[in-house]
Amino acid sequence: MELFKVDTIEDSIKKIYDKCINDNFNLELEEISIEDSLGRILAKDVVAGEGFPTFDRSVVDGYAVISNDVSGATETMPIFLNKIYEVKMGENVSLELKSGECCYVPTGGMIPKNADTVVMIEHTEILSDKKIAIYKNSQSGKNILKKYSDINVNQVVIKKSEIINEYHIGLLSVLGITKVFVYKKLNVSIISTGDELVPYETQNILDGKIRDSNSNMLKSGCIKYGFNVVEKIHINDDYDLLNEAVKSAKEKSNIVLLSGGSSKGKKDFTKNVIENNSKDGILIHGIAIKPGKPTIAAYDNFSKTILIGLPGHSQAAYLIFKLLVLALYEKLSGANFNKYKICMGKLTENIPSSQGRKTIQLVSVSDDFYVTPIYGKSGSTNDLANADGYIVIELNNEGLNKNDIVKVYYL
Amino acid sequence: MELFKVDTIEDSIKKIYDKCINDNFNLELEEISIEDSLGRILAKDVVAGEGFPTFDRSVVDGYAVISNDVSGATETMPIFLNKIYEVKMGENVSLELKSGECCYVPTGGMIPKNADTVVMIEHTEILSDKKIAIYKNSQSGKNILKKYSDINVNQVVIKKSEIINEYHIGLLSVLGITKVFVYKKLNVSIISTGDELVPYETQNILDGKIRDSNSNMLKSGCIKYGFNVVEKIHINDDYDLLNEAVKSAKEKSNIVLLSGGSSKGKKDFTKNVIENNSKDGILIHGIAIKPGKPTIAAYDNFSKTILIGLPGHSQAAYLIFKLLVLALYEKLSGANFNKYKICMGKLTENIPSSQGRKTIQLVSVSDDFYVTPIYGKSGSTNDLANADGYIVIELNNEGLNKNDIVKVYYL
Repeated sequence: MELFKVDTIEDSIKKIYDKCINDNFNLELEEISIEDSLGRILAKDVVAGEGFPTFDRSVVDGYAVISNDVSGATETMPIFLNKIYEVKMGENVSLELKSGECCYVPTGGMIPKNADTVVMIEHTEILSDKKIAIYKNSQSGKNILKKYSDINVNQVVIKKSEIINEYHIGLLSVLGITKVFVYKKLNVSIISTGDELVPYETQNILDGKIRDSNSNMLKSGCIKYGFNVVEKIHINDDYDLLNEAVKSAKEKSNIVLLSGGSSKGKKDFTKNVIENNSKDGILIHGIAIKPGKPTIAAYDNFSKTILIGLPGHSQAAYLIFKLLVLALYEKLSGANFNKYKICMGKLTENIPSSQGRKTIQLVSVSDDFYVTPIYGKSGSTNDLANADGYIVIELNNEGLNKNDIVKVYYL
Repeated sequence: MELFKVDTIEDSIKKIYDKCINDNFNLELEEISIEDSLGRILAKDVVAGEGFPTFDRSVVDGYAVISNDVSGATETMPIFLNKIYEVKMGENVSLELKSGECCYVPTGGMIPKNADTVVMIEHTEILSDKKIAIYKNSQSGKNILKKYSDINVNQVVIKKSEIINEYHIGLLSVLGITKVFVYKKLNVSIISTGDELVPYETQNILDGKIRDSNSNMLKSGCIKYGFNVVEKIHINDDYDLLNEAVKSAKEKSNIVLLSGGSSKGKKDFTKNVIENNSKDGILIHGIAIKPGKPTIAAYDNFSKTILIGLPGHSQAAYLIFKLLVLALYEKLSGANFNKYKICMGKLTENIPSSQGRKTIQLVSVSDDFYVTPIYGKSGSTNDLANADGYIVIELNNEGLNKNDIVKVYYL
């Protein structure tokens, strides 16, 4: 039996990353409409071509005035001004305010020249068509959003590597930026292996068989994180068939995920097939992580394809997808998929030490942030569906104690 | 000027919800493939038609034995057993183990009859083709996942109202459940109003004008949360045009979102149009929330359409979309969109009281969970894009203090 030489997960990511970088496995760029950009990863800084706002805007409904004119206004001693105009929404105002004059401006409306403040309508009174009482002073600049004061020309408004959200799309719209450069979706092939697997649609399964669930889970995960799943197939434990499948998958994929068959069992063709399909051989064979130890990784210089042999057990397979494949994609793209999926919580019980392996412990999180480890039955298939997240117990941690504050990554 | 009678946000949601319920505004169901179900809301409990596993499975690579046979086995005093067979992955095994016999079983393989435990391969030695040394005892049941012990027949495996994730899809696959009932996506029309708005694609805009950004932000938000955006249009401040647009939108939508035009300004047709388009008139006119006070809501009994007049300012518009529209959808569907978007953090500065309105305060969250309020310029357009989340300051809160632990909702 071959001895497992195991890397840490960090070293594993770095090994594959370095190989990718050395071989110019570059994420490609594409320019897309901002309306299609939700969830995509920005590939270039977005620079404002113009500032915002493009004119001095009122931020309230009120009367644009010259601040000096109203400096003495109070509830008991109002100042009376001549109303010379009512600005309409969207109107390009060319008039110039003179001392003693005021002009109605709605929220978002343009401020006339010479006016330097806006008195809110609540502090005014209409005495006649032409005469307005001002009951409160207003400092210069108040209630006005000055031209370019919110966003300056050439300001970087969204940084490269941000995952584009609806707020970004709003901001881009304001600035008239209709297209952005994002990273092209990576093509992923998912190949599940094993004689024991039958298609998940199979209704009456024979004893000994099990439905293929990993490939559907991985496919959904790939879609969720912005990969393009080009293929999802099942191959029996047959070297030639698997070899052909991987060869063909490499042609159309940036990443080939093999699920199952990477443990030490007898019918494990996966390692040999991966080896045969990567010019420089296996990069990773075994990772010091629990679950997920029997993970294989290689890189094929010819097709520029990353080959990953995931563990067969669903929980391990998906966690390695997240902690290795997704982490690698984050390193390549600069994106941070976990940024808004982390919370701190308090452990409800002790967790023993991880004994030389980084341990990924599934947990549930209560509404008041109490964190409880979920110890499923070995081989259980629904632990992931029942968990809220996971905590990471580092390699040399002596164990965690009840009431420790821990960082939870939501699943 | 009409006096604003303002409801709390909770009352506002309840008013619309009650109206919906009274009028049988029911979320419709549809049955879809699990492969298309990511992010959809489950409309019925999912019950396992069969249990899991469907046979006694080994959870390790090793030798299936009768536990009594190996009860005395130790490193120095091994027990010797006759190997009668090697189970293959996926094989339906019919043989029966007798005392003194063992049988190789791979991880996931079927346990032969009479065997009640599996000794891990690490604690065994192959002496000959037929003879195996066992160096460790193994209790009855150890390393076996018994038939139906993970999931029982008729067990509810995923509850109604769950937002379906990749783990659910994996679990459904294991159980051979190929289709699920989810809530049909609600159809949403987005109508932005205002003479000041120009299409966001406009490159050279005149002073006084501003690009329509809210409708793109709302559209993206709707897509993110699983609505179907059937229309996104802009209408100038013209009663008849807006009235026609709303009338037409009602025919094809469950929800009509009007953006802009709900403040107290002079050209506010929105309220009148909404009133004219809802049989029982306005339900909500003003909400005791900051930002977002000038919000209008109505329900049209004829078309069974919810009509929402959002505030014009982008931050307010989107927060009301989340806190009113999305919250209503959560109440109707039972889903919880915020479940994995909450963290606790420590305030870095005092926040003054909210003065009779529930306040939604945008914040940034540092990597170590320090929470800092973001006070943008009034009228700023990029606060949402710069924020990480928001905190809620309740109606009668006297203000928050530095170092207070607060709950942050990621945006």
